[in-house]
Amino acid sequence: MQEFIANIQSFTAIAAGLMIGLGAMGACIGIGIMGSKFLESAARQPELVPMLQARMFLLAGLIDAAFIIGLAIAMFFAIANPLLAALNAA
Amino acid sequence: MQEFIANIQSFTAIAAGLMIGLGAMGACIGIGIMGSKFLESAARQPELVPMLQARMFLLAGLIDAAFIIGLAIAMFFAIANPLLAALNAA
Amino acid sequence: MQEFIANIQSFTAIAAGLMIGLGAMGACIGIGIMGSKFLESAARQPELVPMLQARMFLLAGLIDAAFIIGLAIAMFFAIANPLLAALNAA
Amino acid sequence: MQEFIANIQSFTAIAAGLMIGLGAMGACIGIGIMGSKFLESAARQPELVPMLQARMFLLAGLIDAAFIIGLAIAMFFAIANPLLAALNAA
Amino acid sequence: MQEFIANIQSFTAIAAGLMIGLGAMGACIGIGIMGSKFLESAARQPELVPMLQARMFLLAGLIDAAFIIGLAIAMFFAIANPLLAALNAA
Amino acid sequence: MQEFIANIQSFTAIAAGLMIGLGAMGACIGIGIMGSKFLESAARQPELVPMLQARMFLLAGLIDAAFIIGLAIAMFFAIANPLLAALNAA
Amino acid sequence: MQEFIANIQSFTAIAAGLMIGLGAMGACIGIGIMGSKFLESAARQPELVPMLQARMFLLAGLIDAAFIIGLAIAMFFAIANPLLAALNAA
Amino acid sequence: MQEFIANIQSFTAIAAGLMIGLGAMGACIGIGIMGSKFLESAARQPELVPMLQARMFLLAGLIDAAFIIGLAIAMFFAIANPLLAALNAA
Amino acid sequence: MQEFIANIQSFTAIAAGLMIGLGAMGACIGIGIMGSKFLESAARQPELVPMLQARMFLLAGLIDAAFIIGLAIAMFFAIANPLLAALNAA
Amino acid sequence: MQEFIANIQSFTAIAAGLMIGLGAMGACIGIGIMGSKFLESAARQPELVPMLQARMFLLAGLIDAAFIIGLAIAMFFAIANPLLAALNAA
Amino acid sequence: MQEFIANIQSFTAIAAGLMIGLGAMGACIGIGIMGSKFLESAARQPELVPMLQARMFLLAGLIDAAFIIGLAIAMFFAIANPLLAALNAA
Amino acid sequence: MQEFIANIQSFTAIAAGLMIGLGAMGACIGIGIMGSKFLESAARQPELVPMLQARMFLLAGLIDAAFIIGLAIAMFFAIANPLLAALNAA
Amino acid sequence: MQEFIANIQSFTAIAAGLMIGLGAMGACIGIGIMGSKFLESAARQPELVPMLQARMFLLAGLIDAAFIIGLAIAMFFAIANPLLAALNAA
Amino acid sequence: MQEFIANIQSFTAIAAGLMIGLGAMGACIGIGIMGSKFLESAARQPELVPMLQARMFLLAGLIDAAFIIGLAIAMFFAIANPLLAALNAA
Repeated sequence: MQEFIANIQSFTAIAAGLMIGLGAMGACIGIGIMGSKFLESAARQPELVPMLQARMFLLAGLIDAAFIIGLAIAMFFAIANPLLAALNAA
Repeated sequence: MQEFIANIQSFTAIAAGLMIGLGAMGACIGIGIMGSKFLESAARQPELVPMLQARMFLLAGLIDAAFIIGLAIAMFFAIANPLLAALNAA
Repeated sequence: MQEFIANIQSFTAIAAGLMIGLGAMGACIGIGIMGSKFLESAARQPELVPMLQARMFLLAGLIDAAFIIGLAIAMFFAIANPLLAALNAA
Repeated sequence: MQEFIANIQSFTAIAAGLMIGLGAMGACIGIGIMGSKFLESAARQPELVPMLQARMFLLAGLIDAAFIIGLAIAMFFAIANPLLAALNAA
Repeated sequence: MQEFIANIQSFTAIAAGLMIGLGAMGACIGIGIMGSKFLESAARQPELVPMLQARMFLLAGLIDAAFIIGLAIAMFFAIANPLLAALNAA
Repeated sequence: MQEFIANIQSFTAIAAGLMIGLGAMGACIGIGIMGSKFLESAARQPELVPMLQARMFLLAGLIDAAFIIGLAIAMFFAIANPLLAALNAA
Repeated sequence: MQEFIANIQSFTAIAAGLMIGLGAMGACIGIGIMGSKFLESAARQPELVPMLQARMFLLAGLIDAAFIIGLAIAMFFAIANPLLAALNAA
Repeated sequence: MQEFIANIQSFTAIAAGLMIGLGAMGACIGIGIMGSKFLESAARQPELVPMLQARMFLLAGLIDAAFIIGLAIAMFFAIANPLLAALNAA
Repeated sequence: MQEFIANIQSFTAIAAGLMIGLGAMGACIGIGIMGSKFLESAARQPELVPMLQARMFLLAGLIDAAFIIGLAIAMFFAIANPLLAALNAA
Repeated sequence: MQEFIANIQSFTAIAAGLMIGLGAMGACIGIGIMGSKFLESAARQPELVPMLQARMFLLAGLIDAAFIIGLAIAMFFAIANPLLAALNAA
Repeated sequence: MQEFIANIQSFTAIAAGLMIGLGAMGACIGIGIMGSKFLESAARQPELVPMLQARMFLLAGLIDAAFIIGLAIAMFFAIANPLLAALNAA
Repeated sequence: MQEFIANIQSFTAIAAGLMIGLGAMGACIGIGIMGSKFLESAARQPELVPMLQARMFLLAGLIDAAFIIGLAIAMFFAIANPLLAALNAA
Repeated sequence: MQEFIANIQSFTAIAAGLMIGLGAMGACIGIGIMGSKFLESAARQPELVPMLQARMFLLAGLIDAAFIIGLAIAMFFAIANPLLAALNAA
Repeated sequence: MQEFIANIQSFTAIAAGLMIGLGAMGACIGIGIMGSKFLESAARQPELVPMLQARMFLLAGLIDAAFIIGLAIAMFFAIANPLLAALNAA
């Protein structure tokens, strides 16, 4: 039975790599696009910075949310792989 | 029968990685595009921020919806893989 | 016969991953493009927001429709794989 | 004969995944492009919204048509795979 | 002889997936580009909408034509695969 | 000799899929680009629509020509595969 | 000797698919780009349409020439594969 | 049991490479986009530099956060691979 | 010796497909770009058409030259494959 | 046990190549984008060069940070591969 | 020794296909970009055409030079493959 | 033990090729982007050339730094491969 | 020993194809970009053509240099493969 | 031991091809971008040509430096492959 577990765990490692790698790249570029607009707006209207900054944190949180959720799923897969339950049940 | 289960579960892991990874990347970039436009609009017309912010949350929810639905399906596949039912029935 | 079922189910898992992953990425980016235009229009003409918002929901529904239909098909494949019928009939 | 059926059905699953996945991504992005133009036009000339909305539904229908047709073909392949007829006839 | 038929039919399934998937994606994006221009023109000159709409249907028909022809060929391949004739004649 | 025929016919199926799939995608996008320009011109100078429409049909015919020729070749390969002649002659 | 012929003919089929598929896609997009410019010019200066149309046909001919030549070569390969001569001579 | 451990660890190495490599590329390009906007804003309004710089550090921190989190997960996988627990438990 | 000839000829077929396919796509798109500029120039200054047309033919000839030369080499490889000489000499 | 170590170390080499190669490419392009903006700003307002240069070094440090961190992890993997601990513990 | 020669010659065929195919595509697109600028310049200043044309030929020659040199090397490899010398010397 | 060393060294060669090849491409394009901006600025304000040139060298150094560091690591891997230590220790 | 030489020489052929093919494509497109700017500048200021032309040749030489150096290395590998020395020395 | 040397040398050949091919393509395109800006600046301000030309040579040297360094490393690998030392030492 160990070889079947090893087989599933190996493919789960690749899956976790895809989830976290693609998500991190997307989050970095997404915050970069949003942040360049924030700096431009802040420089054009400095009196609005506190208001804009609060919104910028909201947006950064929303962007990171998708990445963090994917990361949490990847960790859940890695620590308590639900795909093994079917194998153990057999 | 265990080797057939291991075979299906391994491919399901890759499928879950594709669903969550591609979805997270799309959600991050999508909110990044939408958020940069929000900050620009907020800086140009600060008196509209409460109204715009409510719409921005609506849109962020709509964008995340597709990602969360895909994620839920991936978790459903991982925990109670419906593809195994046909194998058990045989 | 189990090995043939396992073979079909494994490939069906990959197919479901392609359907949901590509669809979710497309829906996220599509709503992101549409939503940035909505926020821009709302900031330029705040008195039109209720009218525009109703249309925005319509469009979000239309964009999500394609994703949800593909997702439903993927779930149908996963739970009651129609591709197995031919195998059982043989 | 079962192994030949399993072989054909596996490849048909991948084919259905390509048809629905690529089609859904194209439909989402296509409606996204068209919808952003609709919101822009609606915001610029609010008195034309009823007329434009009717046209927008027409276009959404035309865009979804290609996706739905491809999806119907994929379901036809999955439920009553015409590729198996040649095998049965042999 | 069955294994040779199964071999040809499997590859034909992939070929049909390529024909319909690529065609549907192209048609969706093509109508999306054309439709966004139609809505823009309709909003700028509302008195021309009936004339433009007739042309838009013509163009949608021309764009879908290529997709439908490819789809018809794919169905012809699937139902009465002409590639099998050479095998039967041998 | 049947296995050699099956080998050639399988690869011919993939070749036909490439010919028709790539051609249909190119034709859809090509007519989409050309058609959006036609609608823009028609909206700007409605008195020229009959003249422009005739030219638009000419262009659509020219664009579809390449796709139809490739499709005809693919059908010719599928129905009377000239690649088999060398095998039969041996 | 038949297996060697089948081997060469199979690869020749893929080569023909590449020649015709890539050529058709290039020709469709090339005429689409050129045709959109023609319609724009025709709408701006309707008195020049006969002169422009003659040039447009010339250009369409030149664009299609490359596609047709590649197609002719592909047909020549398919019907009288010159690559087999070396095999027969051995 | 060693061969199963080696199998999982090898795939984990590739997964760590994907997480860190894609994340680092995304972070570098994201900070580059954001930083070019910062320099432009700083040159246009030098009196705002202290305020902008504080925001720039905030954004750089947010961008690096996604990369650092992915990196920490990769290190956790490398040092105490949670995927091995299932193997040891068997 | 026949299997070695078949091996070389098969790879030569793929090489010829790459030469002609990539060349034809490049030539079609290259003439398309050049031709759209020609029509634009011709519509702006109709009195220069004869002069421009001569230059356009020159350019089309130069663009096609690279494609035709590659095609000639591919035909030379196909009809009198120089790669076989080393095999015959051994 | 040596073959298992060799297996893990080989995949670790590829992982290190991905980490350093993708990171270096991202860092080079990121600094190139940021630096071109710096030179443009410096040429437009030469009196701000000392202030801008200090910020440019800050940004270059932030961009290089992600690359250097990934490089350090790669070196750590290469010199004291933590993935081998699990193998030794078995 | 023949199988080793066949092995080298097969890979040399692919190498020649890459050299000529990529070179021809680059040359076609390069001359297309350069030629569209030439026609634009010629239409704007017709009195400069003889001077510009001479320069255009120079540039076309320079662009084709890289393609022709790569082609000559490919022919040299095909006719007198220098890679075989080491094999014969052994 | 030699086959294990050869295995690791072969993969290390590919890793070094990725590190140096991707890094060199990134450095060339990065300096090209930065340098074109430098020449533009120098031509617009020739009196600032000495100041700009010093900054340009700084930036070129920063861009090359990432490439040189990656190259140094690749050389270190090639000459004293740290991945072999684990093998020798076993 | 011949099979080892054939192995190295085959991979060297692919390496030479990559060096010359990628280099030729880069050189063609690079000169095309540079040449289109030259023609534009020459048409705008015809009195500067001799000066510009000398610089254009310099640049074409610099662009071709990288291609020619890579080509020379490829020829050196092909005629006197330095990679074989280690094999002969063993 | 010869088969291990041949194995390492073959992969080193591919690595050298990647280093030189990607580097040459990057250098050609990088100098092309930089050179087109140089010609534009030279045509706009002919009195600055000597100053600009000196800077252009500096930049071309900096761009080529990365390519030449990568090329030198590739030659060093080819002539005195440091990866073989570990094998000889074993």
